[in-house]
Parts: sequence; C-alpha cells; structure tokens
Amino acid sequence: MKLTRHISVFVIAQLCIIGSVNCGNILVWHTEGSHWINLKPILETLIDRGHSVTVLVQSASVYMDPTEKARFSYEPFNVSISMQQMNDFFEEFIHFHMYEIDHLSYLQIHWKGYHIVKRDLKFSIQICDGLLRSETVMRRLREAKYDVLLSDPIYPCSDLVAEDLGIPLVYTLRFSVAHMWERLCGQLPSPPSFVPGAMIKLTDEMSFTERLLNFLFYASQDMMAYGYWQDIDAYYSEIRGKPSTYCEVMGQADLWLIRTYWDFDYPRPFLPNFKFVGGIHCKPAKPLPEDMEEFVQSSGDDGIVVFTLGSMIKNLTTEKGNIIASALGQIPQKVLWRLSGDKPETLAPNTRVLDWIPQNDLLGHPKTRAFITHGGTNGIYEAIYHGVPMVGIPMFADQPDNMVHMKAKGAAVIMNFNTMKTQDLVDGLNTVINEPSYKENALRLSRIHHDRPISPKDEAVFWIEFTMRNKGAKHLRVQAHELTWYQYHSLDVFAFLLAIVMLLTLLFIKTCLFCVRRCCYGAKSKRKTEHKRKQ
Amino acid sequence: MKLTRHISVFVIAQLCIIGSVNCGNILVWHTEGSHWINLKPILETLIDRGHSVTVLVQSASVYMDPTEKARFSYEPFNVSISMQQMNDFFEEFIHFHMYEIDHLSYLQIHWKGYHIVKRDLKFSIQICDGLLRSETVMRRLREAKYDVLLSDPIYPCSDLVAEDLGIPLVYTLRFSVAHMWERLCGQLPSPPSFVPGAMIKLTDEMSFTERLLNFLFYASQDMMAYGYWQDIDAYYSEIRGKPSTYCEVMGQADLWLIRTYWDFDYPRPFLPNFKFVGGIHCKPAKPLPEDMEEFVQSSGDDGIVVFTLGSMIKNLTTEKGNIIASALGQIPQKVLWRLSGDKPETLAPNTRVLDWIPQNDLLGHPKTRAFITHGGTNGIYEAIYHGVPMVGIPMFADQPDNMVHMKAKGAAVIMNFNTMKTQDLVDGLNTVINEPSYKENALRLSRIHHDRPISPKDEAVFWIEFTMRNKGAKHLRVQAHELTWYQYHSLDVFAFLLAIVMLLTLLFIKTCLFCVRRCCYGAKSKRKTEHKRKQ
Repeated sequence: MKLTRHISVFVIAQLCIIGSVNCGNILVWHTEGSHWINLKPILETLIDRGHSVTVLVQSASVYMDPTEKARFSYEPFNVSISMQQMNDFFEEFIHFHMYEIDHLSYLQIHWKGYHIVKRDLKFSIQICDGLLRSETVMRRLREAKYDVLLSDPIYPCSDLVAEDLGIPLVYTLRFSVAHMWERLCGQLPSPPSFVPGAMIKLTDEMSFTERLLNFLFYASQDMMAYGYWQDIDAYYSEIRGKPSTYCEVMGQADLWLIRTYWDFDYPRPFLPNFKFVGGIHCKPAKPLPEDMEEFVQSSGDDGIVVFTLGSMIKNLTTEKGNIIASALGQIPQKVLWRLSGDKPETLAPNTRVLDWIPQNDLLGHPKTRAFITHGGTNGIYEAIYHGVPMVGIPMFADQPDNMVHMKAKGAAVIMNFNTMKTQDLVDGLNTVINEPSYKENALRLSRIHHDRPISPKDEAVFWIEFTMRNKGAKHLRVQAHELTWYQYHSLDVFAFLLAIVMLLTLLFIKTCLFCVRRCCYGAKSKRKTEHKRKQ
Repeated sequence: MKLTRHISVFVIAQLCIIGSVNCGNILVWHTEGSHWINLKPILETLIDRGHSVTVLVQSASVYMDPTEKARFSYEPFNVSISMQQMNDFFEEFIHFHMYEIDHLSYLQIHWKGYHIVKRDLKFSIQICDGLLRSETVMRRLREAKYDVLLSDPIYPCSDLVAEDLGIPLVYTLRFSVAHMWERLCGQLPSPPSFVPGAMIKLTDEMSFTERLLNFLFYASQDMMAYGYWQDIDAYYSEIRGKPSTYCEVMGQADLWLIRTYWDFDYPRPFLPNFKFVGGIHCKPAKPLPEDMEEFVQSSGDDGIVVFTLGSMIKNLTTEKGNIIASALGQIPQKVLWRLSGDKPETLAPNTRVLDWIPQNDLLGHPKTRAFITHGGTNGIYEAIYHGVPMVGIPMFADQPDNMVHMKAKGAAVIMNFNTMKTQDLVDGLNTVINEPSYKENALRLSRIHHDRPISPKDEAVFWIEFTMRNKGAKHLRVQAHELTWYQYHSLDVFAFLLAIVMLLTLLFIKTCLFCVRRCCYGAKSKRKTEHKRKQ
C-alpha cells in the first residue's frame, strides 16, 4: 500500500503489471446499447493494468456478443426471453420517442412511457431470475472469488449478486430520469431550486415557473417510480427472504461513478462516494485513412462538418434524408455523414455518405468546424474533448436534455427532428461555424475537460481499484442511508419543536386567561362586596 | 494547456520551473497561529513550483514575522491596534477556554463567547481598514498584477481586496463554527440530521435528542452570526458603496480548500468548488537527532509515547504538570514530552521533557505506540498520516470536537483536561496502546489518508494553479448563490402549490355547498309548489 503514496496512477499501473500485486478479479454486470460502449474503455484499461475481467452476458442480449473475440472473458447465462422480444422492445422504444411522441398529449406520453418502463422492468426481472436461479452460474461466480462487481444499474440486480458474493459494488452510470436512483437510493442531495432533474430540458438558472415545473417533475417521477418499483421490490424481498426494497439494496453500493463532469453538467451538490468521470472513452485523434484525409483536405479553409445520429439510428425516412441532404448542400464546408441505407436524392457533391466514420478522429481533425449530432453523451463528450461546436438533432432518451446542457453552455444550437426544415439546419450550421462565441465556448469546455488533476479514465480505474484494495469504500458513504425520509429532513425535530411551541403557547394563553379571570373575578367580587357594604 | 493532459501534477511542476510557463504571482492573506502554520507548506510548494509568493502581514501580528528570513516576500501594512492588544486578546481567549469555561453556565459561556467574537471582529475590521485605507499599499498591490489571492477567511476582507484587484479568490480553511461560512456563504448543503455542526462534539450517527441539539445548534449559531456580522456588513457596505453583506461577498470565492478529508471528517454532501485537502503539511519522518534516537531505542519493545499540547500552550499549572507526570511514570513506555517552563516534581525517569520535539519525525518512528495530544488538527493529521493511536486532552477551539472525530473512528480516547486524574491518563494510555483495535483503526485511517488519486498538497496546489490558468473557477460555483433562502428551499413553490390546493378546495366546497343549496332549495320550493297546488 505504501507504494501508492503520492505517485500518479500511471506509475501504479506499472507496478500492478510488473509485480502482479493488487491485480484483481473483476466481475462486470450485463448491459446494452451505448451503456455497453461506455463500459468497454474502462474494461480495456483494467485489463491493461493486469486485472482479470469477466463480463456477465444474458442469452437474449442484442448488443453484447459472447462469441466475439475480446480480451475479457464472458460468463453467459440463460434467460426466459428471446432476442427477438428484446429487439422488438428496443424498436418500439425508439419508434415511440422518434415518431409517436410528437403526436401524443402530455398525459398520453406519460401513460405510454410508464407502460414501456413497466415492461422493461418485467424483462429485467426475468433476466435477474435467469441468473439468480441458475445454481451452476451462481456457484461458478462464488468459486471465482471476484474482488468487485462493476455495474451500470440500467439493469437491476447487480446489488443482489454483489451481496450474495460478499464483494464491493461499483456503479457506473450517466443518470437516471429525474436523478431518481441517485437521489432516492444514493442519497444525492438535489434541491429542485437549482438542480434540474435529468431529462426535463431545463438549466440550473430557472425562473419561478421553471422551478415549479422542476419541483413537480421530481414529485411526479418519484410517485411513478414507486409505481414502477413495486414488482421489483417484491422480487428483491423474495430473493433476500425479508421485506426489502430495490432502492434500499441499490443504496448499499460502495461507489457511484457518474459519467459526466462540470464541462457538461451544471455544478451541483454531491457526495464523497460519487465521482464524476465524464469522458472516460475520449482519446486523442488518430490519422484518418488516406482517401478520407484527401477529402478533408479538399475542403480548404472552409473545413468540414462531421455528422452522425448515433449507434441506434440505422437509417432515416426518405423525406427526412432529403431535408437534411439539401441543407448540407448549401454550406461551403465539406460534410462526412454516417448513414446506412439508401443515399438521399438531394445529396450534394460536398457531402460524402459512409456506413461508418472514425468519429473521434474526425472530431479531432484541425479542419473540423462543426459536429451534427443526435446528442448522445458519448458523441458530445468527444466534441467537448476536441473543442468542436455542435448542431444537435436530438431524438429520444437523454438526447434532448443533453443538447440543452450544450446550448446553455453556449457551444451548440438545437434543431427539432420532427419539424426541422432545410433552412433551419443551414442557419444552425452557419451560426455555430461563423459566430465565434460557439467555438470559444467549445474550447472553454474542452479546457475544463482536460484541466483536472487526473483524467476521467484514471479516476474511474483508481476508485475501482480502491474498492478492491480496501474491500469496499464504506467510509465515503453518508450516514443519511440509515435515516428515514422524515428524519433526513428533520421533520420529526420540527414536529417536536412545533409541539413544544404550541404547548408553551397554550400554557401561556391558559395562564393569561386564568390571570384575567382572577383579576376580573377579583375585581367583580370586590365591587360586589363594596356594593353590598355601601348598601 | 495541452501539456497538462493526463500527466501527474509532479510532471507539471517541472514544466513550470523549466519553462517559466504559467508561473504566477500569488498574494496571500494575513493570518495568525495554527492557521499560519497550515498555510506555510502550500506556500513552500508553490515557490518550489516557480511561483512568486507575497504575504500580507499586519503591524500587530503576533505569529507572523516579516523580518524573518523566508522564501516568500512580505507586504506589511499598518493597523490601528498594537501587538500588545492582540496578544492580550489571544491570552484572554485561551484562558477563557482552558480555565473559565468549566465554571460558567451554558448561557454565561454563550454570552462571554459572543462578546469575545464581537471583539475579535472589531479588531478584524480595524485590520481591514488599515489595509483598504492605505492608498500606498493598495496601489502597490494593484500594480503588482497578482493572479490569485489565497486566504484563510479567519480574518475577513480578503474578498474585498480580491474584488478590488479583480483577481480570483481561493479560501483555505479548516472549518467555521457550525459550518456557518461554508453553509450560509458558500452554499454548502449540511442537513442537520447527519452533518454535525463543527464544534458541537457530535458524530454523524445521532439519536433523536442529538439531532434536535444539532438542529438547535445550527439555528442558534445562525442567529448569533447575524448578530456578529452586523458591524462587518456595515463596513462592507461602506467600502463597496452599496448595501452588501459579508456573507454575500465571501460567497464570490472561486474555491474553498477545506483542510480535512474522509480520514478525519464524517462523509457529507459537498460542492464542486469545495476540495477536501486535509493533511497538506504531512510528510514522511526524517531520522531523529542521535541522542533522541538513543533514548527512543532504549525503550525496547515497549516503545515510546509522544506528548505535546500544541503551539499555543506554553506551560501548565504545577498541579496539572504533576498529575500528568505521575501518570507518565506509571507506564512501561518511554515518553518524550514537549513542555516549556519548570519540570514537574513528579517527573519519572522514563520521561524526557524538552522545549521542542520533532513531532512528525517521532510520530513516524516505528517505536511510537501512542500520541498524547491537545487535539489540534495539525497534530491529529500527523498521527493519522503515520497511523498512531491517540490520547486526547483537548482544551479549546476545535480541539474537543476534533477528538470526538478520532474517538468515533476508534483511534483515540479522550481525557477531560480540567477533571483528569493521574489514573485516568494511565488507563487511557494503556487502552490505546494495549487494545489492538486502536492501532488497527489508526492504520485504517492512515490507509484512507494515503490511498487517494492525488496527495492533498498536490490537490491544493493544482486548484490554486487552475484558478490562475483559467482566471477563476466559476464553472464550479453552484447557481444556489443567486437564490434567496426561500427560493433555495422551494418555499415559494410550496406556498404557490398550497395556495392552488387551498383555492381548489375552497372552490370544491363552495361548489358542493351551492349544489346542496340548489338541491335543498329546489326540493323545498318543489315541495312548496306541490303543497300550494294541493291547497
């Protein structure tokens, strides 16, 4: 342990590999989509540092492939749902957010959203059950003597498995809706007056109406959460053999690695076991393939625009494709557009459409002037890392909210995917490219991103290793976990003090009345006596 | 800036010296006592890293000596109080806490304490005035083009000077009573249910009564603070030429470097511009002088006990000295005791009394079994650094509260300085030396202290340099600073919602009453009509 004193993580890294000291055995929770993309760079670094990494993967996984060649090993387990069911669910989820949401009323959105989450949690419980009821897999996990369980809590039950294996649990997450997990389970203080709930599309500077909306958003999401969580609470109680809640067990986690930082997030209160490690996957740009470099260089002083809509959007409707392609044709920059499927008819010669682009290498290229993005956190972080202003075309999940962050920080403009016209996109691109404040703000965010004592990846790795070295990190966990909600807010103390004040007031009034009565009665009887005497 | 990416602070240090890049001009606020001792190691490191450091010193300073040979330069200024007045104030302060406090009632303590603080603040305003009204010194400060002002806020007005000079302000502090500055001016969230107010001598695990006491402690201190601060608010308003409060101007600070960490403090909510850098002054032990090493080695397997009562206690009464010396004579360990003045009569051969001892080198010696301390944060941190269990004899200021922290973490026992008998001290020493849990806990705290991504000194230096490089750190400052107290707690939102609910209830009741009346009236008139018809 003494060797770790006052030396950088990079030096420790060498020690772990050379001496095989402290090299641990890490179990990783299954996940999907961009969550899996986010986990991979941490796993790679952990492996580089000599740790052994095993990733749990469920049989219906859409995004994880246990047959792919990887440096970590997979621990597969069977579940009672099919890959088709999972795929259908994702398709419905995306379709709802991309196309249905704009045609529904506020209440219909909530109603449908509620049922989608309920179904997601039903699938999640089936996945939990597949693992927890599998004696073979669970025995293998117990025998493997893991040192820590690393989990993105998007899929529940990692806390139950960590508890069963008796090992520390480290969460890594971007956010939960209205910060429900962080607030309700992790005890993260989030005053609604200046901490906008995740997904609400507000900033930390709120008017009275916005503060009211934020307050109601927290309250309504909390009520909905207790609705969602009933089934999972029952499942947790069944597995643990005692009345338990999902939230209470989640709260046992040693550390919460949050995948943002103050380059992206609004400054807010946090706790010693919450570490903000946004931008874990970011890295310097590599040289481009020769033909691509040639295309980029041909843009001259105007430079290029990089355009992707993320890993979940495979193609666009013909109409949308043409609107966008027409706009791209009207700017002097050259454009590299990642798009699967048919090429739009209105595609101009300045635009090159490709199935895949080296996004990070392009964003880090000195000729890049702007990034058209769907607003996923990964892409935004790459733009922040390289200081590139953005045009956001957010569609679903956290994307609209993410883009509001970037707009508030002056590094982006936002388009509405459903109502956007060709001219809107042209104007948006010209604004972020030609108004210097956008580039300046993007560079300011980049400076904040880079100028920290330790890189986000090193910080994440440090704290994962910390829990392994120290068998947990409970000294960072606030005592608030042991309090009820009314104790946390000192409501019992308030009630007690109020009772005392009321009692004293009552006593005072009674005493006054008593005195007044005595005085009056005394005066009255005195007058009567005097009257009688006079008579 | 790019050079700082992903490399440790130690590497940056070299760059600053070699290339003279980013080497800044740092102004340091005047201070006294242990606050000055705490500042020095940061200043030394900043100088080592190539920065130029200038320390403000007032003409009545008791602990700062502008004539002493130092690597930083002093900027002296005259004040309208004498060194004798300052000295008398310190003497009275110490005497009150050491000897008077136990003979006074709770109300008397608060009354006298209130007046001591009021007088301290009167002196403080006189010191402020000495600097701010000195055109010569202020002009010199303006011309020197400082990059940052580093200040321990124990003496006010550094914020006014930073504002005048237009430079960022970095606070470095251990705490304020009941975290008043941090809570009220820095917006640090401190729920009274699990964050004990500094100085209250409670832990983060509180019973109902303790939570009630903590709540009342916060409330009473806040009320007292607004009493203390009236004069200083008026002074701030006068200097700024507009209605201002001390707290509001303090809140403009870019960073708050708090001199504790989770090895000493209970985990609690904090903010992005609060950095916990406890143990800045700690360093490895150096070899002892030859004769002292000989004495230590002569202790054999029993080892030694190190004993100091801090820099402010010069000597003890004969009675106290004899009680302590008798106790030390009854333990098998050898003792090194730092004590000025006459040697106690009951001094035993195992105890060596010295005017000065190399405290850190002794605490880091493998033969050290325990540390008898007054409970100052500096000494406690050296004991934590070296993993030495403690016997606390706290006297005043934060010392009793500090020792409660160490007791709660299982690394210390506490003596009452005023009522302590010889046997109490013997028992206390035997407990921490012979019960293994004390040593184990001291080592656990030491592990927490050392096992962090960056050393406290490097972290403090990093953030001071950050504010210089980036002309401040306002992106870490929460929006809560712009809210009133009722907005912060969403009380206006509550009131609005309550009004809506009451209005709706009223409307509902009125509607019901109207319907009932209509029904009854209708039925009544119908009956009347029928009755008439029948007639």
